Amino acid sequence: MGKKKVMLPAREVDLATVKYQYDKIEAPHLTGFSLKLFVKLLEAPGIGSLIISRLKKENKMVEMLRNTVIPEPPMFKPEFPPQESETGVVPLDEDGKPEERVALALKCLPDYDPSTNWSADSSASFRYWKIRDYAHAYRSKLTTPSIVAERFISAMDEFNNKKPPTPLLISYDPEHIRKQAAASTKRFEEGNPLSILDGIFMAIKDDIDCCPHPSNGGTTFFHEIRQVEKDAVSVSRLRCCGVILVGKANMHELGLGTTGNNPNYGTARNPHDPERYTGGSSSGPAAIVASGLCSAALGTDGGGSVRIPSSLCGIVGLKSTYGRTDMTGAICDSGTVEIIGPITSNVEDAILVYAAILGSSASEKIALKPSVPCLPDLSSRENSNALGSLRLGKYTEWFNDVFSTDISNKCEDVLNRLLDTYGCKTVEIVIPELHEMVTAHIVSIGSESLCGLTPDFEDGKRVEFTHDTRTNLALFRSFTASDYVAAQCLRRRIMHYHMEIFKEVDVIVTPTTGMTAPIIPPAALKSGETNLQVSANLMRFVTTANLLGFPAISVPVGYDKQGLPIGLQIIGRPWCEASILRLAAVVEELCGTPNKKPLQFYDMLKGN
Amino acid sequence: MGKKKVMLPAREVDLATVKYQYDKIEAPHLTGFSLKLFVKLLEAPGIGSLIISRLKKENKMVEMLRNTVIPEPPMFKPEFPPQESETGVVPLDEDGKPEERVALALKCLPDYDPSTNWSADSSASFRYWKIRDYAHAYRSKLTTPSIVAERFISAMDEFNNKKPPTPLLISYDPEHIRKQAAASTKRFEEGNPLSILDGIFMAIKDDIDCCPHPSNGGTTFFHEIRQVEKDAVSVSRLRCCGVILVGKANMHELGLGTTGNNPNYGTARNPHDPERYTGGSSSGPAAIVASGLCSAALGTDGGGSVRIPSSLCGIVGLKSTYGRTDMTGAICDSGTVEIIGPITSNVEDAILVYAAILGSSASEKIALKPSVPCLPDLSSRENSNALGSLRLGKYTEWFNDVFSTDISNKCEDVLNRLLDTYGCKTVEIVIPELHEMVTAHIVSIGSESLCGLTPDFEDGKRVEFTHDTRTNLALFRSFTASDYVAAQCLRRRIMHYHMEIFKEVDVIVTPTTGMTAPIIPPAALKSGETNLQVSANLMRFVTTANLLGFPAISVPVGYDKQGLPIGLQIIGRPWCEASILRLAAVVEELCGTPNKKPLQFYDMLKGN
Repeated sequence: MGKKKVMLPAREVDLATVKYQYDKIEAPHLTGFSLKLFVKLLEAPGIGSLIISRLKKENKMVEMLRNTVIPEPPMFKPEFPPQESETGVVPLDEDGKPEERVALALKCLPDYDPSTNWSADSSASFRYWKIRDYAHAYRSKLTTPSIVAERFISAMDEFNNKKPPTPLLISYDPEHIRKQAAASTKRFEEGNPLSILDGIFMAIKDDIDCCPHPSNGGTTFFHEIRQVEKDAVSVSRLRCCGVILVGKANMHELGLGTTGNNPNYGTARNPHDPERYTGGSSSGPAAIVASGLCSAALGTDGGGSVRIPSSLCGIVGLKSTYGRTDMTGAICDSGTVEIIGPITSNVEDAILVYAAILGSSASEKIALKPSVPCLPDLSSRENSNALGSLRLGKYTEWFNDVFSTDISNKCEDVLNRLLDTYGCKTVEIVIPELHEMVTAHIVSIGSESLCGLTPDFEDGKRVEFTHDTRTNLALFRSFTASDYVAAQCLRRRIMHYHMEIFKEVDVIVTPTTGMTAPIIPPAALKSGETNLQVSANLMRFVTTANLLGFPAISVPVGYDKQGLPIGLQIIGRPWCEASILRLAAVVEELCGTPNKKPLQFYDMLKGN
Repeated sequence: MGKKKVMLPAREVDLATVKYQYDKIEAPHLTGFSLKLFVKLLEAPGIGSLIISRLKKENKMVEMLRNTVIPEPPMFKPEFPPQESETGVVPLDEDGKPEERVALALKCLPDYDPSTNWSADSSASFRYWKIRDYAHAYRSKLTTPSIVAERFISAMDEFNNKKPPTPLLISYDPEHIRKQAAASTKRFEEGNPLSILDGIFMAIKDDIDCCPHPSNGGTTFFHEIRQVEKDAVSVSRLRCCGVILVGKANMHELGLGTTGNNPNYGTARNPHDPERYTGGSSSGPAAIVASGLCSAALGTDGGGSVRIPSSLCGIVGLKSTYGRTDMTGAICDSGTVEIIGPITSNVEDAILVYAAILGSSASEKIALKPSVPCLPDLSSRENSNALGSLRLGKYTEWFNDVFSTDISNKCEDVLNRLLDTYGCKTVEIVIPELHEMVTAHIVSIGSESLCGLTPDFEDGKRVEFTHDTRTNLALFRSFTASDYVAAQCLRRRIMHYHMEIFKEVDVIVTPTTGMTAPIIPPAALKSGETNLQVSANLMRFVTTANLLGFPAISVPVGYDKQGLPIGLQIIGRPWCEASILRLAAVVEELCGTPNKKPLQFYDMLKGN
């Protein structure tokens, strides 16, 4: 029996009394033999449920979900009040052709000046090739998609023969790439490219369907139980634009982890330091873009899975508003927290890929009534002057709750430069119930993931998952239906607080992650790893956008003392992708695009 | 381990292959000592969960929720595609004043002719007084609210002293009634009644807040853990109209049962046969209206709780579209299946009360974007001619799956008369997965009810519930979060089937219940009863409107051979209350309003 606690209605909570609570994660860090033993115990009848109960109790989950009267009714999916329309934006037709949206997106960008990128001075500091650099090279016949394809294929060979192996793609067919590249090359020869994305190389995370590949979601066996018959909607939109789809990118198994550790296929290495994790769960997508091998990748983000690895790999990751992208054809399309989003080396590429893939599903159009998707008009300087009125919300104690002050200092610098250069004011905010938010998120994503897996689980597939996944699933199986509903009541409270905050500020800014890329413990490579302390550091700032469905973007803002990338996260109002993309573009300009060449970098345009 | 089953996507299901499945409920019928013993076992560690597992397995719940791959994403709340607007209807302003809506509703009714009701011929066949009869009597000074109040109070005294006791109200204060009646009487004296509802006597189900009464939800102790500080929104709307609120009506504890059995306060008796149940859970509301003591009552309907007792007591019960009424101030305002609805003796009174109480909450306006509420314009004959084009959907095997053919025959008669008189065609339909619908509903309502109770449960209040409730709660506690999500996936499938059906028909017609009022086993009075077979018969036709949020109404259409009332249920398209109200009014006219005087009947206008 617990002690009953009664929450005040959210609208009566006095923000002046809110105190920031530091994490006290009570859980063992396990790898290798100890992890295997732990999973055995967890799955044993009796003792397993005792361990789980203990864990949940120590982390206050039981207290929040079972001993607390939550006065709000449940909010099962993000519900958004009507939003003010954004200014200086260009609306897109979500029911129109992806090529046409991409063409419109192109008009939103500043003019392209080849001379700055194609100068003879190759000693200029490092920068990633942008999609428009490839597009220029193809159109000026400096190279062809087929030439890039051969470079890509030989780079992949090299990667696959590396010791230790660092598999970026876990389903990959050179002949299929050559065929797509030849068709694209032919279109350029005929002067008929499909869009600015024609001939651009992209990877698809393994939990998103992309023919002719299986979708394993990072497991070893999903292809046996789930056939891929057609492209996911977002992938088919890329294909319409002429994108070359290189294969299925590695990931944390089922997306149920944030390091990217994957004992099934090997763990993708961080291009900035191969001894470190990429972050996850979209590990392969982030690593392949950060290595220069692809211009973009699609990831899924249900708990930071696009933003975390983008931050740790020094690139850009966009999580759009819940429902903005069509999840049809993604393994976890039943979630209330997940979207498909682009991972790119820079903001303008994120804009182009986002324009191609956006468009809500028919059922979300009924349920959510999304507002018209828009892009920021960056084509003229004048629009960035509008930034002066932008109010940046910052919860300083949260902002500073990071593993190393390098992170908060670097992010703080950016805010100061935004004030100095554009007059963007930082407004101090307070966000109550951040721990409740984490609990509501884990219960939601866990239960929704588990639901899709239960029939296979009951069918005896449990032992084919990694030990890390089995640990997570044991926790998820302990959630009751009543816990799930209670989590949704918390969601409504926390939505209320944020809607109040968004009356005072236009965006909320945080570091993307509470730590830079963690070291991969050697023992974790073979049997996996469970380290809730690392998870908590990586996920500290990301769950808001998942639980509440807000758009958010991670932009690289520099490096820590060890040379590891740091990301700034910008969280926007619902449906206001344009605002965060505009601010991200300005941040990128202020910080300079990443200028430290990753250790593992391949130059696809000029050859290695 | 189970055998995995993979469902076809709902849109690929071939309706020609669908076979109607008769219930096979596998559960014991328990009362008295055996029920108490059963609850003891259920709540014992180990054995309890074994019993529950067995029950769920035998009723195929495990198979449906855990061994089946359901391809649809979850639908957590009813999601409605935009609907065609109804014709011959009058729109109401849901943000306007209740009195103004009621005034508009009055204009939708046929002219009131006092001569037909107030003729000297008191030997005319029985009929209930309508709200407009009271209104006429007050305005013509034939009586006053204060006179009616005294009759009401003495009738209540008589009722409370009956053997066996049959408590209609479980919180009741004669002085408070006298005060309200005096104020109303004064308004009439001054010629300023607030609305047509001024001085009309209504009861409020015990799970809806109504000052100064506690809300116990039929339990003995809820008043200790939940304070009532103000009227529920729907109650305050009635109060604005001058309604006299007589107190809190008896109910099945927490609404978790359909007979109305309540060992805490005594079980309300069916006015047509005091040895029989009223049906539930709104037992008191139905009985008090059917006895002639009140013109109307508010009930809640999460699983037929308004319609079932209305049907069994020979009166009218309206379940509006999910979200149409504001649940603020109802004990179960967290449900995705529940509404507050009027119980009245006839259709026009249902229209008047519905007009007063309707209006979505602010959050539902955001989430559901309700269409404008409308009433049928019954003021001229011409509008009923429009009925000719109405297509009535009937799934004959389901329609006929009743305990006695009296029920299906009587309902079938009505359909024939609708065809003969108005040309309304009956269209044969097929509805797949009715059993899945029942499972999805019980998991939804059970989990959502439990969520609100868990903190008290954990706090040691379990033993204060009735044995029937404890049996239900033991089942509900066994539902996992993944079961809950799976149930929501089923909800999306079943919504799909119904939206397809609603392309072919305008309404779906069924008997309201699969049996007429069941006998009360004497042993059940003291310790309650668990009889899933009776529940299945009572609930067979009602869950569609709850799981999918459709509006539905029960209208009395006659009596079985034992003289017990039979109800016809009309289920409408989402937001189309006007259509079902119009059809209900016509059915009522065709069948004649109930003309068999209940055994327990009090004449409030003319004295007993």
